[in-house]
Amino acid sequence: MSDVEQPTPMKLAVVGAAGRMGQTLIRIIHSTPGAMLSGAIERVGSPHIGSDAGVLAGVGKLGVPISDDALAAFAGVEGVLDFTTPAASVEFAGLAAQTGIVHVVGTTGCDSTDDAKIALAARHAVVIKSGNMSLGVNLLAVLVKQAAKALGADDFDVEILEMHHKHKVDAPSGTALLLGEAAAEGRNIGLGQHSVRVRDGHTGAREAGTIGFASLRGGSVVGDHSVILAGQGERITLSHHAEDRSIFARGAVKAALWGRGRKPGLYTMLDVLGLDT
Amino acid sequence: MSDVEQPTPMKLAVVGAAGRMGQTLIRIIHSTPGAMLSGAIERVGSPHIGSDAGVLAGVGKLGVPISDDALAAFAGVEGVLDFTTPAASVEFAGLAAQTGIVHVVGTTGCDSTDDAKIALAARHAVVIKSGNMSLGVNLLAVLVKQAAKALGADDFDVEILEMHHKHKVDAPSGTALLLGEAAAEGRNIGLGQHSVRVRDGHTGAREAGTIGFASLRGGSVVGDHSVILAGQGERITLSHHAEDRSIFARGAVKAALWGRGRKPGLYTMLDVLGLDT
Amino acid sequence: MSDVEQPTPMKLAVVGAAGRMGQTLIRIIHSTPGAMLSGAIERVGSPHIGSDAGVLAGVGKLGVPISDDALAAFAGVEGVLDFTTPAASVEFAGLAAQTGIVHVVGTTGCDSTDDAKIALAARHAVVIKSGNMSLGVNLLAVLVKQAAKALGADDFDVEILEMHHKHKVDAPSGTALLLGEAAAEGRNIGLGQHSVRVRDGHTGAREAGTIGFASLRGGSVVGDHSVILAGQGERITLSHHAEDRSIFARGAVKAALWGRGRKPGLYTMLDVLGLDT
Amino acid sequence: MSDVEQPTPMKLAVVGAAGRMGQTLIRIIHSTPGAMLSGAIERVGSPHIGSDAGVLAGVGKLGVPISDDALAAFAGVEGVLDFTTPAASVEFAGLAAQTGIVHVVGTTGCDSTDDAKIALAARHAVVIKSGNMSLGVNLLAVLVKQAAKALGADDFDVEILEMHHKHKVDAPSGTALLLGEAAAEGRNIGLGQHSVRVRDGHTGAREAGTIGFASLRGGSVVGDHSVILAGQGERITLSHHAEDRSIFARGAVKAALWGRGRKPGLYTMLDVLGLDT
Repeated sequence: MSDVEQPTPMKLAVVGAAGRMGQTLIRIIHSTPGAMLSGAIERVGSPHIGSDAGVLAGVGKLGVPISDDALAAFAGVEGVLDFTTPAASVEFAGLAAQTGIVHVVGTTGCDSTDDAKIALAARHAVVIKSGNMSLGVNLLAVLVKQAAKALGADDFDVEILEMHHKHKVDAPSGTALLLGEAAAEGRNIGLGQHSVRVRDGHTGAREAGTIGFASLRGGSVVGDHSVILAGQGERITLSHHAEDRSIFARGAVKAALWGRGRKPGLYTMLDVLGLDT
Repeated sequence: MSDVEQPTPMKLAVVGAAGRMGQTLIRIIHSTPGAMLSGAIERVGSPHIGSDAGVLAGVGKLGVPISDDALAAFAGVEGVLDFTTPAASVEFAGLAAQTGIVHVVGTTGCDSTDDAKIALAARHAVVIKSGNMSLGVNLLAVLVKQAAKALGADDFDVEILEMHHKHKVDAPSGTALLLGEAAAEGRNIGLGQHSVRVRDGHTGAREAGTIGFASLRGGSVVGDHSVILAGQGERITLSHHAEDRSIFARGAVKAALWGRGRKPGLYTMLDVLGLDT
Repeated sequence: MSDVEQPTPMKLAVVGAAGRMGQTLIRIIHSTPGAMLSGAIERVGSPHIGSDAGVLAGVGKLGVPISDDALAAFAGVEGVLDFTTPAASVEFAGLAAQTGIVHVVGTTGCDSTDDAKIALAARHAVVIKSGNMSLGVNLLAVLVKQAAKALGADDFDVEILEMHHKHKVDAPSGTALLLGEAAAEGRNIGLGQHSVRVRDGHTGAREAGTIGFASLRGGSVVGDHSVILAGQGERITLSHHAEDRSIFARGAVKAALWGRGRKPGLYTMLDVLGLDT
Repeated sequence: MSDVEQPTPMKLAVVGAAGRMGQTLIRIIHSTPGAMLSGAIERVGSPHIGSDAGVLAGVGKLGVPISDDALAAFAGVEGVLDFTTPAASVEFAGLAAQTGIVHVVGTTGCDSTDDAKIALAARHAVVIKSGNMSLGVNLLAVLVKQAAKALGADDFDVEILEMHHKHKVDAPSGTALLLGEAAAEGRNIGLGQHSVRVRDGHTGAREAGTIGFASLRGGSVVGDHSVILAGQGERITLSHHAEDRSIFARGAVKAALWGRGRKPGLYTMLDVLGLDT
């Protein structure tokens, strides 16, 4: 017997397994050393119940049929990856608490009631929840906060630029606003009262302490974000470039592996990255 | 006597010699091989009449006193550099025609009457006139027009981004609009009906064939411009970065040297660059 | 009957249909209005002979079985897309000449003998051949040539930067060298004698007229290229960013559609883009 | 008497006052609220002794003659700005300790003996010393260290790119190496054994855990630096862009103002920025 044992792979379930994000999660689990797919859940009545999750996701037969019994599936795994809806995530958090597994929540749009219920479940489960599951964006937000704090409003102006594909229907992007919030926190101000959302025509000189936004749209750009801190004679630019949407799945799997064996509690991607702010 | 003779330096005059741009022109002439300052003109009544133009511009005594007699000065030089006002430039064009010298006009804001008068003067003088005298921006506009034509509106979206210092009071910049005009010409459309000046809130999907603008403001940025052509799976970005305002003076001196010995006519920086569109 | 008739879709064949690039070509044809897959060829002995080409490429059954009879397939289509090997492309060019169809050749590595044979075939077929089939890179090369010509070596230094994924085993990239050739042509110099491939330690000042290269490697970057023209006080940057490898297939399909109904001859992507240099 | 008193401006001396950096320091002190020039020192025998420091620096008469008596000058000020030589800085540190003033040291090239002597002097003076006095570069180094730590070598590749003007004679720049050291510290590795300084020809695939460098040269670029962390599907880029060399003087004056009233000790720009690492 070897002195150095490989840990057994972490058994993971995916909820919403037949959806676009669910399929991406299955592909990323399949290609990540130390992780294995052991459960795949869809809502009752889905036409995919019984299909092989791997075949559906395009990675070949994995021997994991899609099921509508979440509790049974949770009982057989160590973690669950969840990019669904607020109502579903609240329910899954309860089941995760019951089975004592890791629950990674990438669902967006939760209100304070939802968040309170998830926090309650986190007393008995390791729950990791973030508005954006990409490692890079979460790190960037931390760096932006620090930079905005260290380079004060008297000397440095903060501007946030984003570009997305031509189909995106709103501006600025949620991630641009998240980065704006990080800068505002670093400056100890509220973003709402200090943001300049557009500039056109006679704008007058820039007001110190404001945070400016600009949005570009075109082609098939997945998502580029830059935060610029412009001072007298120098500029710092902190950027994130997303090549494809799999980074959110990748971050979620990383979070699950990180959560294995931790004590119950509510964590964020900043904990996964080992950063505090 | 040598077989290879160096041409004698081109004698140049600067109008508005005591102003900020006039002083920059004097410094650039002073540092350009093949050019020499031989005249410096200010308006009647200027407190600087009689001062040495080189001392005023910070490059030491050049033996060229600032004068208010433009005609006498033009008679003693081969070219004149002019970043003044429309009314003054019209008058200087007439004097340049009378003396048969090169007239480089970087003045902005001329209306069609002014332009007609300058065109008339160009029957007897080499007049080189452009809205932006930088070599780089003029080249960029030519490239943008070609790119917008080659990569059609069905496949590629055009976006224009600019950043300037915090004191700038309008948006988008004149150069951004000039680049937008170049793209619109390449597409054979009018810019006015196809530009999207800002994006905020629920914008809906991007409309094909539009040209988008975005403006950033901060610090001491002299002027950055990017034109992005974003297609399915690829992006072309054509950018200009200005480090300091001397590039306009540098382009004007280059234009004067190019104009030496040409036959009279109205030229632009595109002729100087050897480009047609 | 309507006065305005939709043209019938152009029937296309793909050679090397079971390979990675062949499958991408099939997917792009499938999603391009005005194009349809009507033939799919693999070498004799391929295990995929007889399989449905659409199923293999992941777009569902198209009713086009993979065949090893190229001549029969060519006889039934109007164009063929070919990213294979020099020897195979020479043979396919001969068959294209025999059947009088459009032959789009994205194959790299042809020597002068291969090129001569393909040129001969182009007397009876529309052959479109380029080292890089992406619309953006071909346009960029044209713009780089013009910029390097307009902004001469006395005033502007040319630098070429590329970044690719961590698995790439050579540097600089072929496309970086192609862009360097374009700049050298614009300057009317040979690239070989004027390129600076690396800089490390005491390099001395930059020699005017040289073309510098730099290569970055990391992550999963598909391919970024920038050509910088740096002068006194200003910089022009011309960049191409590839998001995914489908842009080569997309350019090839576009070339085929452009070639429909043209008279025989050897063309490049510059003709497709409507650019001459 | 007002309840809110403006503090009196901090009296500062500049050593090496007639040099290029000394003059820049004088100009920046002159334009910074809360700072005033009260001493200007040159070496014994300098032809500038007795000249007005403001006139020499081009900001007009300041009533501060250049002197060769450093001790007398230090006795009359609260801080001294020093971008000279290691030997001179060691001596000035001793005089600063004697007079109990703030000593800002931007001198480069100190060996360990010099550093030890300066550290000894810092027992009685506030000494602030950094290899690069720009606020932006110091902040960037901190962010790079954190990013390199949070995004480990298994997942993210670190690449460092710099561009400088055509006259620079070495590569990579000192600041690029400083940023490389920051990344290496974050990864807990030595830079020397893990850096890849150039890439040319057949390089093989990128080795995980290395830190790559690339250098561009051209035009009049003051100094651009980017640190790229490239992972699967996403990229973080942390950049600094210097517009002019005054940022080093600006950082030094900021450091002096920060040091006023602190207790003696050896500090760095990270302390000034309020960052620890």
